[in-house]
Amino acid sequence: MNSEATMGEPNNKADYLVGVDFGGTKVLAGVFNPKLELQGMAKVSTKAHRGIDAVIERIARCVRDAVDEADLNLKQIAGVGIGAPGAVDGEAGNIIFAPNLQWHDVPLKKALEKQLEVPVFVENDCNIAALGVYHVELKSKPRHMLGIFVGTGIGGGLIINGDLYSGFGHTAGEVGHMIIDANGPKCGCGNKGCYEAIASRTAIFNRVKAAVKDGQKTLLTEMLGDDLADMRSGDLRKAVRKGDKFITKVVEDAAEYTGLAVASLINVLNPEVVVLGGGVIEALGDEMMEIIKKTVKDHAMPGALKGVEIFESHLGDNAGITGGAVLAKRMTK
Amino acid sequence: MNSEATMGEPNNKADYLVGVDFGGTKVLAGVFNPKLELQGMAKVSTKAHRGIDAVIERIARCVRDAVDEADLNLKQIAGVGIGAPGAVDGEAGNIIFAPNLQWHDVPLKKALEKQLEVPVFVENDCNIAALGVYHVELKSKPRHMLGIFVGTGIGGGLIINGDLYSGFGHTAGEVGHMIIDANGPKCGCGNKGCYEAIASRTAIFNRVKAAVKDGQKTLLTEMLGDDLADMRSGDLRKAVRKGDKFITKVVEDAAEYTGLAVASLINVLNPEVVVLGGGVIEALGDEMMEIIKKTVKDHAMPGALKGVEIFESHLGDNAGITGGAVLAKRMTK
Repeated sequence: MNSEATMGEPNNKADYLVGVDFGGTKVLAGVFNPKLELQGMAKVSTKAHRGIDAVIERIARCVRDAVDEADLNLKQIAGVGIGAPGAVDGEAGNIIFAPNLQWHDVPLKKALEKQLEVPVFVENDCNIAALGVYHVELKSKPRHMLGIFVGTGIGGGLIINGDLYSGFGHTAGEVGHMIIDANGPKCGCGNKGCYEAIASRTAIFNRVKAAVKDGQKTLLTEMLGDDLADMRSGDLRKAVRKGDKFITKVVEDAAEYTGLAVASLINVLNPEVVVLGGGVIEALGDEMMEIIKKTVKDHAMPGALKGVEIFESHLGDNAGITGGAVLAKRMTK
Repeated sequence: MNSEATMGEPNNKADYLVGVDFGGTKVLAGVFNPKLELQGMAKVSTKAHRGIDAVIERIARCVRDAVDEADLNLKQIAGVGIGAPGAVDGEAGNIIFAPNLQWHDVPLKKALEKQLEVPVFVENDCNIAALGVYHVELKSKPRHMLGIFVGTGIGGGLIINGDLYSGFGHTAGEVGHMIIDANGPKCGCGNKGCYEAIASRTAIFNRVKAAVKDGQKTLLTEMLGDDLADMRSGDLRKAVRKGDKFITKVVEDAAEYTGLAVASLINVLNPEVVVLGGGVIEALGDEMMEIIKKTVKDHAMPGALKGVEIFESHLGDNAGITGGAVLAKRMTK
């Protein structure tokens, strides 16, 4: 290995990697050594309203800050892997369409390479998170893996035959917009009963807020006030652990719907491993995972489920930056 | 090419192919020339109650009958490709589990090769039908294709990166058991609201029969008697074309649910082409395809749908035998 690097001294061998998780509200960058151990991080808000050029400058600054935080310089970086929300053409490094940002055809790779003078690789954020989990958390290296990330929305990443599968138009993995209750609640995409409209953090919070408005009692109003301002997934966990029956039911229902979605996806895709991650699972894994697994067992076809492993990712918010570093490592090797 | 073969004279060069569609009620075998043109067919009933050995003998007889029908002999057959219902280990040629037949771990390849003395290749029936459509009906040879076959049940076949994708346990493609209405009708698999429980021929017939029992008027009772004996998909088409409003609504609803299922699958898989086939689509394509396409357009994410082609297979009942011949051709080349 690189003996100079392991001494922690700056040197000019470019074998460190940067992973970036670029979302609608924040940008997170992490610097990793060649063993994929995290060396330093930085975070900035996205400020999408300032426009494309300004956001790209902020991403570049976030990368520089993370590199500085790790006591390194850009010359020591082999590559930057970045996960972006929406449809991404990984080969060209373009964002085809990012609905949350309203970006169309943005050459992110080219723009960032110009600013950083380091090779940059771009992929969809959920694909990259799946890649991070696959490389860091799975020793068995299964051929086929499905990653489902439950947060503000719900997204997925597919690994097929050991490689990211991104589909014809680079949009594969939108598991949040699988319809699981054709007569269910309206989704942001215009459909009724999408998985995301029933079991995402947004859907859970909407259900709690609507019930409170209708007079439902919950410990959450004592914790956060009647308007439930600044509610977070962790608040739900606290309420459940304090014995709040209503919140317990809401969380159990969300876990059951996630179980139905996972069962459907196992029937269609028959992956070897299903990984659940994202903020909601990170905060409520202890409350949800057993219900999810039981629901899958009750609803997936026995043949399709045979030998399939379902587990909780513990990378949490770091899945994106880890996957970015894995992508950069794969592409610069 | 082979000039002797094109003269229609028997010869001993083994370059003909046999495709077999092996289902719970019937076995269909077709003999194809190297250009994949059908030369002869045979059909027998499965008679599953007679047991595994008897059924395998019937399959072998059906193959021999088809070869004889084409004025050929088994020495002229390069290989036999067979689509079987259930989870199939294509490499070993074993049926892992076929729920309709209650077969577990049956070495179909080995047993048939012993009887026919010709190489035999086994795959899942819907995978093989997808392969047939892909090779015979698609000039563009898309990288990723989803085939959905709507008949007594609903199954699917996936082609990813130009190859059949069968998943970890060889069960991928069970699109009929994707839950699309969590509070919908009960499915044979035990779930509620599977796509198959809402839009298969069985589901459509059940809905019609239940409504007639409750006093619903329909031309079908005039055509088939009050017990609706021997109802077929073609009878629905006749009733629709004669202006039967109830049957028209039933068929439209089934088409809409198929549209929701296709939209969900496009969101998850982002294939380049979606092909719809099977007996229901064959009989009611004119009535259903436009509704299916409109529903998909209204419910798939615009990015995932961009450039995706949705079309009706015209191979009908021959999709299985054609795919079987394609498999045999691929494997013996």
